[in-house]
Amino acid sequence: MAKRNALYAQSGGVTAVINGSAYGFAMAAREAGFIDEVYGGNNGINGVLYEEIVDLGQESAEALAALRHTPGGALGSARKKLQDLKKNQAEFQRILEVLDAHEIRYFFYNGGNDSMDTVAKLAQYAKEQGADLQVLGIPKTIDNDLPITDNSPGFGSAAKYNSISMMEASLDLASMCRDSTKVFVLEAMGRHAGWIAASTGLAHRSELDGPHAILLPEVNLNKDRFYKLVEDTVAKIGYCAVTVSEGIKDGNGNFLAEGGTKDAFGHAQLGGAGQALQEMIKADLGMKVHGAILDYCQRSARHVASKVDVEQAVAAARKAVELAGEGISGAMVTIVRESDAPYQWSLGHTDASNIANKEKILPKEYIREDGLHITPEFRKYCEPLIQGEEPPPYENGLPVYRRLAKNMLATKLPSFKL
Amino acid sequence: MAKRNALYAQSGGVTAVINGSAYGFAMAAREAGFIDEVYGGNNGINGVLYEEIVDLGQESAEALAALRHTPGGALGSARKKLQDLKKNQAEFQRILEVLDAHEIRYFFYNGGNDSMDTVAKLAQYAKEQGADLQVLGIPKTIDNDLPITDNSPGFGSAAKYNSISMMEASLDLASMCRDSTKVFVLEAMGRHAGWIAASTGLAHRSELDGPHAILLPEVNLNKDRFYKLVEDTVAKIGYCAVTVSEGIKDGNGNFLAEGGTKDAFGHAQLGGAGQALQEMIKADLGMKVHGAILDYCQRSARHVASKVDVEQAVAAARKAVELAGEGISGAMVTIVRESDAPYQWSLGHTDASNIANKEKILPKEYIREDGLHITPEFRKYCEPLIQGEEPPPYENGLPVYRRLAKNMLATKLPSFKL
Repeated sequence: MAKRNALYAQSGGVTAVINGSAYGFAMAAREAGFIDEVYGGNNGINGVLYEEIVDLGQESAEALAALRHTPGGALGSARKKLQDLKKNQAEFQRILEVLDAHEIRYFFYNGGNDSMDTVAKLAQYAKEQGADLQVLGIPKTIDNDLPITDNSPGFGSAAKYNSISMMEASLDLASMCRDSTKVFVLEAMGRHAGWIAASTGLAHRSELDGPHAILLPEVNLNKDRFYKLVEDTVAKIGYCAVTVSEGIKDGNGNFLAEGGTKDAFGHAQLGGAGQALQEMIKADLGMKVHGAILDYCQRSARHVASKVDVEQAVAAARKAVELAGEGISGAMVTIVRESDAPYQWSLGHTDASNIANKEKILPKEYIREDGLHITPEFRKYCEPLIQGEEPPPYENGLPVYRRLAKNMLATKLPSFKL
Repeated sequence: MAKRNALYAQSGGVTAVINGSAYGFAMAAREAGFIDEVYGGNNGINGVLYEEIVDLGQESAEALAALRHTPGGALGSARKKLQDLKKNQAEFQRILEVLDAHEIRYFFYNGGNDSMDTVAKLAQYAKEQGADLQVLGIPKTIDNDLPITDNSPGFGSAAKYNSISMMEASLDLASMCRDSTKVFVLEAMGRHAGWIAASTGLAHRSELDGPHAILLPEVNLNKDRFYKLVEDTVAKIGYCAVTVSEGIKDGNGNFLAEGGTKDAFGHAQLGGAGQALQEMIKADLGMKVHGAILDYCQRSARHVASKVDVEQAVAAARKAVELAGEGISGAMVTIVRESDAPYQWSLGHTDASNIANKEKILPKEYIREDGLHITPEFRKYCEPLIQGEEPPPYENGLPVYRRLAKNMLATKLPSFKL
């Protein structure tokens, strides 16, 4: 009898909780009566294109359970974006062939804006071709820049980690400022949207707590205003802690620091905004400056993940399996905020085309009028997302993170070349 | 009746657990029958020179208890180093006067190499002047570069945090390497001693776990050998994670990156070694590289401190109070390793002059023969120091860190100018 199998794959920059979604998928798919075999794609869409299909049914119960607390992307991720359907159908056709060869009727894609473009196009193409395939999107991004969904799994943990880092570094700075460092600069990820940088504002509960300024990509830097804030803060409390988004732009709207290289999606690879800002402050204000660039650590710090975030990552994948059972295709699961206090949320869904290639930047009402900090409205939005702790188990002083065995299915088709 | 008061002060770069020593001091001094009032110096030796003396007796029990889990230096630290006794007695004389004015007979100084220089000189000067004063040192440094003591409080937590950061970032890197980043560079603190960089080697338990290379200040960089290791590792597993010490030197023994500025102790302020290495790898190997600079976060990450480290920080301060009761002066408390497995330790003491201005670098037997990684002997040494977790309490998603009220004593002397 023909089988109805399901495949899950991870795409784009990983998060501290993307494997929570892998866990949620694996659990729900095993329980679902309408799914037979449970598979994973090796390195996102590459796993389908190149027929590298992981048999999740062969993973031990321990390995699957450990997904819930293991950062990184257990199946491997991908930066690859499918070519335009009108220009090149070959990739789409190949995907349908591979999935069909393995009787995969449900394809779950866990990613951000670009990945939802794939979900929308593939679902549409499958429909046009009359293929027996449903395609569902599971949201994921530390950047929190997906529209429609109230927030994205991965963001809450990045927000929590960055906020704690800012809290701790500010206490360090406060100790040293009398005859040493006066300014500390934390560089946060977020290419075009300042959600992560803004989230560190949660650490600012009194005038002694950093960050005292938050430089967002949504607001071109007003150097005079920023310098005045730094100088006033140092004059008043002795030090000043600043969060700067990697995507901060100067007064003319140009990136403060531009690495000059581009990633596989064609986006400029940024880096050095923190360094550039440090040099500016040193040169212009003559203050001793230190700075941290947390880079990949901020999207993999599972050791201090938000419990709410873990739960949403797991639940979003479970919901996607549920939607598959209802015959839905071309949709992404969304998180719906029911109330702020107490924080209550539910899950919904929207057409993936509503998400594809759109970036939700910080709305004006979340940015303080001077452009240098957050508003109470943002705090109300963000605070629920960092609630709760769910630390990994520890052994011998370090977290117990596990890798999947990743047994691959035998290939059934000739190999594929782009 | 004349009182016999005690003062504790913090000096140099702070650690995640230096307040554990403040806590240990406050508890032990309150319990000690021979101590009357319990004070703190505001910003290290500045608090004594400028007669800014914090009345720890006025702190609430909650605030004192919270010291155990609050990073930074609760009393404020200092980079100030006393001038040479032979050239300028004024500072030493002033210190004796201030301490005497407040009937302080026990001065506890919590710091590293430079601070132990102060302990040794001040104890000697007090003795020569016939002053009723005992001076005791409590070890503290994330750099772990103090001689004689088996390790220094602060190091174990920095080691744990950096190791976890490397573990997590390596899992991230492994997910992305197929069509994106191939090399990740973590810059670790450690000006002349590679203890922190080396400690990340604990995360390397299999060939898939970073770090695959550790660049230490003790070994001038052999570029060809390092590049070969990076290329071989990428060829074999797809990615390569590297820890680089901020103090790494090129083949000629010059710092790979030199900020050009100096701190108040006259040491070169480094920074940019990680950035420099990233640029080299990009240019010479043509690989996509990411990198993190944890900076102050690595010496303040109390949220993931080592329990052993917290306990040693507390115990070392308690021991100093005990030594004071025995009439000892001019000594620093040491941590003595009794056995590796099970790890057992006790406390001893040594003349502060044995510690002053000496740096313990990584011994040869802890560095792998190719100079690019650690040995099993180092692992045996370091692993016990990161054991156990003692997370802070959390409230509303963030750790509960507290500040002291820092009520100052009324001054009794004219103000002091250098």
